[in-house]
Amino acid sequence: MKDGIRAVQFGCGPIGCAVAKLAIQRPNMELVGAVDIDKNKIGRDLGEVTGIGKKLGILVTDDVDGLFGRTRVDVVFHQTSSSLKRVAPELVKLLEFGVNIVSTTEELAFPFATQPELAAEIDRVARANRATVLGTGVNPGFVMDSWILFMTAVCQEVRKVKAVRVQDARTRRLPFQKKIGAGCTPEQFQKLVDAGTLRHVGLTESIAMIGDGLGWILDNITESIEPVMAQGWVQSPYISVEPGQAAGVRQIGRGLRGKEEVITLEFEASLGAPESYDAICITGIPNMEVVIKGGTHGDIATAAIVVNAARRVIEAEPGLLTMKDLPIVICRV
Amino acid sequence: MKDGIRAVQFGCGPIGCAVAKLAIQRPNMELVGAVDIDKNKIGRDLGEVTGIGKKLGILVTDDVDGLFGRTRVDVVFHQTSSSLKRVAPELVKLLEFGVNIVSTTEELAFPFATQPELAAEIDRVARANRATVLGTGVNPGFVMDSWILFMTAVCQEVRKVKAVRVQDARTRRLPFQKKIGAGCTPEQFQKLVDAGTLRHVGLTESIAMIGDGLGWILDNITESIEPVMAQGWVQSPYISVEPGQAAGVRQIGRGLRGKEEVITLEFEASLGAPESYDAICITGIPNMEVVIKGGTHGDIATAAIVVNAARRVIEAEPGLLTMKDLPIVICRV
Repeated sequence: MKDGIRAVQFGCGPIGCAVAKLAIQRPNMELVGAVDIDKNKIGRDLGEVTGIGKKLGILVTDDVDGLFGRTRVDVVFHQTSSSLKRVAPELVKLLEFGVNIVSTTEELAFPFATQPELAAEIDRVARANRATVLGTGVNPGFVMDSWILFMTAVCQEVRKVKAVRVQDARTRRLPFQKKIGAGCTPEQFQKLVDAGTLRHVGLTESIAMIGDGLGWILDNITESIEPVMAQGWVQSPYISVEPGQAAGVRQIGRGLRGKEEVITLEFEASLGAPESYDAICITGIPNMEVVIKGGTHGDIATAAIVVNAARRVIEAEPGLLTMKDLPIVICRV
Repeated sequence: MKDGIRAVQFGCGPIGCAVAKLAIQRPNMELVGAVDIDKNKIGRDLGEVTGIGKKLGILVTDDVDGLFGRTRVDVVFHQTSSSLKRVAPELVKLLEFGVNIVSTTEELAFPFATQPELAAEIDRVARANRATVLGTGVNPGFVMDSWILFMTAVCQEVRKVKAVRVQDARTRRLPFQKKIGAGCTPEQFQKLVDAGTLRHVGLTESIAMIGDGLGWILDNITESIEPVMAQGWVQSPYISVEPGQAAGVRQIGRGLRGKEEVITLEFEASLGAPESYDAICITGIPNMEVVIKGGTHGDIATAAIVVNAARRVIEAEPGLLTMKDLPIVICRV
């Protein structure tokens, strides 16, 4: 018998399944339900849907009212979409049941600058129902925002910050490789950018969180996006890319005070990037350069931070919180 | 006119003066008093004592009752001793005035395992007076404990952690160089170890904090200490060390579960160490290796984290807290 945190998995796509698989392993956690809208998943056992090779006795349902009406739930792991506008009704409905939420919706990581009205509404509903909601993940949520803010603890002064996240995408899932435009011609790449499907979401949110954390009033936040062109043949287990095609994407987010660029976030994910790493540079007193060798694996890290954050979110005051408001999230089992 | 955090500097030695100098520079902070017991400092202006080259209108006093009886104070920066036993009466007296405290007393960083009765007493007095007290600094407080715990946020599982802090002490203060035994013969070094004056204090506290944070029950914590012998001539601006003398100190702290060493903290400070750096290795899912290039300068970082922590400590619930309990400390000005 487990008597720890009672969790529901909301959204059983690749990230949701990764979160659920980790939650199942934790001795201090019990999964008590799973939600998805996919007709091919509803009614099936979560163990089957996640592919863990055994039944869990938890059937995927789309009956949110039924599930939360009859089950005591401490926290919901919410993995459905990057768009705050799309997930807001889901979050509001869950919060009205008084349950805490850890969501990987990128735009929720720090929505106060970009979508202030929606942020205020979610915060209001959360407080009214004594529930806490957090947007987190590896990025936004960790590498390009809360990690930087954490490292500034030992700085007397911070004038500029920069983060660089370079990932060789060959070891990632096929949907991720497609998402970064690998194998596209420049024209196909641009079409995906124009359609809004290629962009890594979160740079703007991370910049806004850093600015707010450091007490900086930012005058402008910009984002650019371009293909990383393959210089030679590159192969992943799924895709083969030839010279002249895109091997992936490079995005740069910039935060400006007046005309000065004080925050720079560079994100590159491409097949065959020469070295994967995450690095931050702080210009100040002192200057700091910190490197995660080999980088942080997106899928592993995102599942981890979601599950690890559960305890902090349950213990926190009600409302819409961000990673900079919480006590440090720890892999505590 | 400043209307920010009202702070008192308690202890005007080298670290206390570094803290005070930073606090003076912060636009959102006002120093409203300074305490020391040194007859050569009492009655002098803090600007003179810290050597900033201008008067501040703050006279160093040893009249704690007078100062705190007539002055509204939000936070005290407490820098007097490494020993919790020695500082406990100071902390209790300050807490009885209801003021919050950020202390660099190393043994206060996580005293619950090593000095549980003293920790409980300080916690009790703090709660009774609605005040918060925190022990922090660069180490313990950051490099070898809260930084490690912070990085585990993106780990699904942690089996072992290791931190290595190597410092070339040539750029540090003379008292620091003497403290690490630079220039001692092996016999002199051992005498200083036996007298208890050479040891860097805090490895045991960091290990206990890590164990508690990760939910590990540690069966044993050990510390070893040995000289780093000079291989050739080494010089600092203050000291010249010849082969056969100690260039500094190497300490290793170990945390064990059963017979397995699950936490290893290696601290080396010596004149002419080939490279200064701070590194942590996490063995788990995934493995992580993170490096602060050039390391974290002890004096700069300690002053920074003390002043940066003020806001979090003021906002926190009453009691004796540690760095793992607080929202992330940020260089916010």
